[in-house]
Amino acid sequence: MRLSTRNQLTGTVSAVQPGAVMTVVTVQLDGGQSVVASITKDAAEELELEVGKPVTALVKSTEVMLGVE
Amino acid sequence: MRLSTRNQLTGTVSAVQPGAVMTVVTVQLDGGQSVVASITKDAAEELELEVGKPVTALVKSTEVMLGVE
Amino acid sequence: MRLSTRNQLTGTVSAVQPGAVMTVVTVQLDGGQSVVASITKDAAEELELEVGKPVTALVKSTEVMLGVE
Amino acid sequence: MRLSTRNQLTGTVSAVQPGAVMTVVTVQLDGGQSVVASITKDAAEELELEVGKPVTALVKSTEVMLGVE
Amino acid sequence: MRLSTRNQLTGTVSAVQPGAVMTVVTVQLDGGQSVVASITKDAAEELELEVGKPVTALVKSTEVMLGVE
Amino acid sequence: MRLSTRNQLTGTVSAVQPGAVMTVVTVQLDGGQSVVASITKDAAEELELEVGKPVTALVKSTEVMLGVE
Repeated sequence: MRLSTRNQLTGTVSAVQPGAVMTVVTVQLDGGQSVVASITKDAAEELELEVGKPVTALVKSTEVMLGVE
Repeated sequence: MRLSTRNQLTGTVSAVQPGAVMTVVTVQLDGGQSVVASITKDAAEELELEVGKPVTALVKSTEVMLGVE
Repeated sequence: MRLSTRNQLTGTVSAVQPGAVMTVVTVQLDGGQSVVASITKDAAEELELEVGKPVTALVKSTEVMLGVE
Repeated sequence: MRLSTRNQLTGTVSAVQPGAVMTVVTVQLDGGQSVVASITKDAAEELELEVGKPVTALVKSTEVMLGVE
Repeated sequence: MRLSTRNQLTGTVSAVQPGAVMTVVTVQLDGGQSVVASITKDAAEELELEVGKPVTALVKSTEVMLGVE
Repeated sequence: MRLSTRNQLTGTVSAVQPGAVMTVVTVQLDGGQSVVASITKDAAEELELEVGKPVTALVKSTEVMLGVE
């Protein structure tokens, strides 16, 4: 499936923190920065997310803010 | 101001597409991937966004989805 | 790619309203209700969205609110 | 109250998973597809959400992505 | 309809900037601060938003970030 | 850092509900209304959020909906 989602950043899972119904996943992006995702625990389990797994982090462009010094 | 926002990715503006009331801004991230932000035209003008300007792209962790092959 | 995104609703494009940099797309869901998406014009063009095209509407669960009478 | 929110899908609660501070609610839409919402536990309790209760799932159009095969 | 949406701030429309398909609306909150909403032009027209009209600004709690000095 | 984020509302933390991986924070806005934020527990701890602490609640304009009676 091709997606309208503008932002599709490739990386590798570097941490998984499961909660009660939500799970917080950290992804080391290819290129060196990292991204944190708060997703449902069900989704994290279905995708079998674990440290070292290659993943794509997706973000809709309307969710991105910009800051300048 | 320190922010709760987990994702703060540094980069450089590589394109600015002004619309009627919204502006679409492309940011080349340090490390090589890129991110697109849809923000208000007012915000883009206030921040004087233009190609080559260093910026930080901010995304709340609840807005990040993950995909696996 | 399998996605963490909980909500993937199948349907057919029933209207496309292109703007300056954003496009508003209406999708008739299989089952009869409809959904409106505001995406970038670039995304709408890349996906070649037009009336009658089958699409999937995706929504992260953290974006869904509930109301009761 | 009339809302600017474009997407108001009617359905019935089919599952409620309470967590520590968040609750994940599944809604069977009229027409057959289903939607998952991650809301605060406080909200879920105030609305007395339980299996079988009729609800409306609301989503802002800027939160909807589209995918094509 | 009672909503799960935690944040329902009352105020008065103080500016309406219609674009091609999106409209940017400024709301002066009761209590003195102001809020800007980017909604579809269709929604702004249906609600007949104009300067001086009393409105409620709604925001899901998962969309709110916090900053400290 | 100056942000594109249109909505930056000042206030004081009035409640903190820590969960497993998410924390729900209530902010009393200057002017009298209040706002609830669902953020990661990590963020809440890093910012040392506690009752009485001055904070700014930030919301992207694309996340704000409007309602009229």
